[in-house]
Amino acid sequence: MPKMYLMIPGPTPVPNDVLREMAREMVNHRGQEFSKALLESTELLKKVFQTNNDVFIFTSSGTGAMEASIVNFFSPGDKVIVGVCGVFGERYAKICNAFGLNVVSIKTPAGKGIEPEELEKVIKENPDVKGVFLTHNETSTGVTLNLRELAPIVKEKDILLIVDAISSLGAIDLPTDALNIDVVVTASQKALETPPGLSMMSVSPLAWEYYERAKLPRFYWDIKMAKKFLEEGATPFTPAVSQVFALRKALENILSRGLENNFKRHKILGSAVRAGVKALGVLNLLADEKFASDTVTAVVPPSNVNPDELRKKLRQEFGVVLAGGQGELKGKIFRIGHVGYVEPTDVLVTLSSLEIVLEKMGYDGLRGKAVESAEKVFLNS
Amino acid sequence: MPKMYLMIPGPTPVPNDVLREMAREMVNHRGQEFSKALLESTELLKKVFQTNNDVFIFTSSGTGAMEASIVNFFSPGDKVIVGVCGVFGERYAKICNAFGLNVVSIKTPAGKGIEPEELEKVIKENPDVKGVFLTHNETSTGVTLNLRELAPIVKEKDILLIVDAISSLGAIDLPTDALNIDVVVTASQKALETPPGLSMMSVSPLAWEYYERAKLPRFYWDIKMAKKFLEEGATPFTPAVSQVFALRKALENILSRGLENNFKRHKILGSAVRAGVKALGVLNLLADEKFASDTVTAVVPPSNVNPDELRKKLRQEFGVVLAGGQGELKGKIFRIGHVGYVEPTDVLVTLSSLEIVLEKMGYDGLRGKAVESAEKVFLNS
Repeated sequence: MPKMYLMIPGPTPVPNDVLREMAREMVNHRGQEFSKALLESTELLKKVFQTNNDVFIFTSSGTGAMEASIVNFFSPGDKVIVGVCGVFGERYAKICNAFGLNVVSIKTPAGKGIEPEELEKVIKENPDVKGVFLTHNETSTGVTLNLRELAPIVKEKDILLIVDAISSLGAIDLPTDALNIDVVVTASQKALETPPGLSMMSVSPLAWEYYERAKLPRFYWDIKMAKKFLEEGATPFTPAVSQVFALRKALENILSRGLENNFKRHKILGSAVRAGVKALGVLNLLADEKFASDTVTAVVPPSNVNPDELRKKLRQEFGVVLAGGQGELKGKIFRIGHVGYVEPTDVLVTLSSLEIVLEKMGYDGLRGKAVESAEKVFLNS
Repeated sequence: MPKMYLMIPGPTPVPNDVLREMAREMVNHRGQEFSKALLESTELLKKVFQTNNDVFIFTSSGTGAMEASIVNFFSPGDKVIVGVCGVFGERYAKICNAFGLNVVSIKTPAGKGIEPEELEKVIKENPDVKGVFLTHNETSTGVTLNLRELAPIVKEKDILLIVDAISSLGAIDLPTDALNIDVVVTASQKALETPPGLSMMSVSPLAWEYYERAKLPRFYWDIKMAKKFLEEGATPFTPAVSQVFALRKALENILSRGLENNFKRHKILGSAVRAGVKALGVLNLLADEKFASDTVTAVVPPSNVNPDELRKKLRQEFGVVLAGGQGELKGKIFRIGHVGYVEPTDVLVTLSSLEIVLEKMGYDGLRGKAVESAEKVFLNS
């Protein structure tokens, strides 16, 4: 197998010590060994969530936790505001619609985030709103919302605030309790450096009040059942045992490096990628600088370069795997993931390969340019 | 780590070549390599399901597929019949209730299955019934239903027939298409010899007609979305990538041994366990012989033996892990799983350890008795 550089916003590369946990012999999911791993993982997760709230682990993709964050707290017809800065905000709106909620969308142009004034205005216009859904880090456009500005606006009115932090939690600072965020959802396969298969959700006391009133049907995602079982060190249904062992290991790694250091590392990686891309001149960053994500960068190539063609060459020639565009941006952009188990060396390989492939596609004089700028970021940080 | 014998009805032991797939480097879930594994796994699954119907893989526990088999096909208020022979039949009834269906239960005493006459009678009494849910193999009591008798009764009226085959598919013959079963659900961690984290569901053309009329809210479990993505070799949401690779390997193993041989092997394992248990005299089988499961055996110990105490001794002294009772049977029985990657040697170890521990607990003259009877089964098969 050729050497591969998985530079996509997820699933992200998994360290070998975590992969080895995946290959552990199977154990009884009702036995002590698993129970210990589940309880320890949950406690470690609370540290990464920066919360004292309940945290639950579901066996599902991240979208499962998104669904859980709706069916546990709302009733048909409830009005909710959904921030839509791309495909994943849109997904939240779609799930809310599927469950019969009354959705008011705040849709931004690609590359832009939500401004506090806008959120304030929409909340004022909708005094009967029950919940606000925000995508902390919109993977499809490389946009990160400033929750330090936005969260207080929602919480001033005691509206339930639900944040999709699937592609950010652990990599970009998200102080759940300090910002009073009621529900945060994430998944194993991004910054948490674990193979996909688990999603997680934190639940505030206010969210529990909403739970008691909520009338949407639920079973698999039911957090009351999950809470009852977790008190016995178990899950209601057979969990993805291997991923729980892997998650514990990955969280131990992350927390031993220090959460603050992890945020800093991603800040540096993001800055280096953006500096490198900009230095090439021929590529444009999709996201506004003020919303630029530290875990994923969306790049607009020149109009005569097909981004999917470019990605194919990068993969075939250098084993560098980038992501394509999603939704309306399909075939228009490519995306560089720099989240989780990604090092400066991976960024250097990516930028360097990009220089070579672009030069082969007719863009002269790019050699070393992106790499030089990225090196500068690494040297100065 | 001491040598362990995981003799529970799931998660079951996983062969080393399958475990090694779990530790594979992460890949892009939208890339060719994963796409190939997903499509091949789906085709191999169809062989194990014995169906030409659509088969979908969800990232979830088996209960997730159970929920999927409800929300995709029914509307609030729909009347359904649920066969309840234990905890897992009860779970189906609970999920149906949670989603507002009108549930008519056929509840049998512990250890008994559903008789054709009973099912016929209840269907006759409820001419407006839309669906019948049956648990092929009830893990909590070790009861297997005779679907060759029951399925035609349901299908005579063209009622949707949904079968939970989580703990049987691949181990006990379940000819989905020959019996015209509309929806079959299963999961990775039983007879399919793969770690937990995936569930599967087959969908007949009639079930698709139900889908089009069904009004229950759905998103994560939506099979129309799953079908659209599967046509492109993908899943709507990030799947448990590692388990899909592992599943493909496990299915290749099972099918290279031959499905018929796998059924036969489980028949022999089940017979050997039951013969061994009976030979001890002091233990009773919970399930009626005519409903005896070939994947799990529920055992009633003498009244002065606490089954959980017995299990603890077996685990500590011999590494033999058995399951306890569930629901009403908690603390009253123990259960021996003999499904998936389990060999006659595992059964011999289990029975022999049981003889020793029971003798230590005061039951004389058991030495060799269970093992002898099991050996006889192995020798004669």
